[in-house]
Amino acid sequence: MSSDAATTQETFAQFRTRSARRIENVLETLLPSPHLLPARLHDAMRYSTLGGGKRIRPLLVYATGACLGVIPEHLDRPAAALEMVHAYSLVHDDLPAMDNDDLRRGRPTCHRAYDEATAILAGDALQTHAFQVLAEPDWGVTTRWQVRMLALLAQAAGSRGMVGGQAIDLAAVGHELALPALEQMHLHKTGMLIRCAIQLALCAAETDEQTAAGTTLLRYADRVGLAFQVQDDILDEIGDLQQTGKAQQGADRSRNKPSFVTLLGLSEAQIYARRLLDEALEALAPWRSEADHLRALARLIVERNK
Amino acid sequence: MSSDAATTQETFAQFRTRSARRIENVLETLLPSPHLLPARLHDAMRYSTLGGGKRIRPLLVYATGACLGVIPEHLDRPAAALEMVHAYSLVHDDLPAMDNDDLRRGRPTCHRAYDEATAILAGDALQTHAFQVLAEPDWGVTTRWQVRMLALLAQAAGSRGMVGGQAIDLAAVGHELALPALEQMHLHKTGMLIRCAIQLALCAAETDEQTAAGTTLLRYADRVGLAFQVQDDILDEIGDLQQTGKAQQGADRSRNKPSFVTLLGLSEAQIYARRLLDEALEALAPWRSEADHLRALARLIVERNK
Repeated sequence: MSSDAATTQETFAQFRTRSARRIENVLETLLPSPHLLPARLHDAMRYSTLGGGKRIRPLLVYATGACLGVIPEHLDRPAAALEMVHAYSLVHDDLPAMDNDDLRRGRPTCHRAYDEATAILAGDALQTHAFQVLAEPDWGVTTRWQVRMLALLAQAAGSRGMVGGQAIDLAAVGHELALPALEQMHLHKTGMLIRCAIQLALCAAETDEQTAAGTTLLRYADRVGLAFQVQDDILDEIGDLQQTGKAQQGADRSRNKPSFVTLLGLSEAQIYARRLLDEALEALAPWRSEADHLRALARLIVERNK
Repeated sequence: MSSDAATTQETFAQFRTRSARRIENVLETLLPSPHLLPARLHDAMRYSTLGGGKRIRPLLVYATGACLGVIPEHLDRPAAALEMVHAYSLVHDDLPAMDNDDLRRGRPTCHRAYDEATAILAGDALQTHAFQVLAEPDWGVTTRWQVRMLALLAQAAGSRGMVGGQAIDLAAVGHELALPALEQMHLHKTGMLIRCAIQLALCAAETDEQTAAGTTLLRYADRVGLAFQVQDDILDEIGDLQQTGKAQQGADRSRNKPSFVTLLGLSEAQIYARRLLDEALEALAPWRSEADHLRALARLIVERNK
């Protein structure tokens, strides 16, 4: 499990900056132009996707691709599709009938910047566009792997994935959840899309999930996905509002939303996040330096402050 | 352009009954089971898709497939995917921030039967599921045509298709539209998904759109798509509420929504619908009896009372 081609002299900081710029350009290009009609809808789609966000999912795609020796051109559309699905889910989650949030990444949420109907439609069209960028012809992977990517994205995003997790989350407000139920909810709500980042990179490398490479990388993905959510809950409780761009600290608690912090307490949640990080790094043990960006990314996810 | 294999002794009434039953079974099977978690979400998805609707898009898929000699098994998933996209668009269109409708097909709309958050998520998951049923492996067509179907569905459903038309429609409320602008809006809002029904059947037949078969069938599709909308506007004005399942007659007029009836007047709109029907039938002139179901379907679309 080493590939000299994938080994890079680049530091993680350099890789991160380069990949963040890359995905921004890719999204710029792949999203419908604001000059195309209906302009307000395209504007809202771009507003909700461009110029912000941690880009964790695209970073995971690029870092996994680097690990497997895939050229970035074959990772651009999977990375963009995931980020579009993520962006659409945020637009809909922020709606008055859902979380009713006014701020996202320090800017007005889509329905505050535009209006509610436009936010519903912009989210809808962003989801469609995610599938479109994967389904368009001739961007590098064979149709066999293209169809597999589309199926994986649909599974990760749908009622047994991200949207299902959101539905469980909504139903859980005001209820006590035990740790396994909370993990189950997050496995769907954020975990499956993070797992999908690694799966899409494996497809781009034409590598089956059942191979040794696939198995270790997916074990890494599952630990990182959960760690991401635990850290999210920690930041909701203690994060700097300037950094997180949120309107309120402790929003989960005040909404009576079950979270790892409300369930375990802050310090236990922090210990849990470290343990998940250790397990993620352990999963990568068979890999050499080609997995260094994935290692650094796991650390970033647990040590981030926004 | 004749195929004895596709010629059928079945009357259109028989074909219609059989196809409506078939798509109901296919949707039943392909939608997530109500016993799977999250049950309320799956329930809402099934409530919004099963047991009602005219099934115009699936009928168009099956009739076009019959015309081209495609076995129904290769048409089931395209037909179901289109109906899921259609169902999701109705769920979101009915939301309070959009049309704010209480009744659909004579039953409470999704957000009235469940709640607004569930309706948003059920619509989201129905859209994802449409792509999933096309992307799943080994249901009969090659991956090349599968990817093409996925791209066509995304184009028809997205910001330059159905959702774009909905955005133009919302922006037009309270404004006067000229006939070309109104047609443009409907071309996106309903026309592209109807066109997509014919396109997906062509894919299932592994037939390019540029062939003589493709060209004539797509000309038919465009006329039928527009005729469908003109008749919709006519029924909004004069339809029997018992038949249409709507809460109010003349809803478009009272909402100041531009429609073919408000623009042309009732009798001109009726004449226009007839002309579009004639043009649709003319497009099918090169075809023999194998296109009879398509001919009858065009008549049904213009002569329906709900």
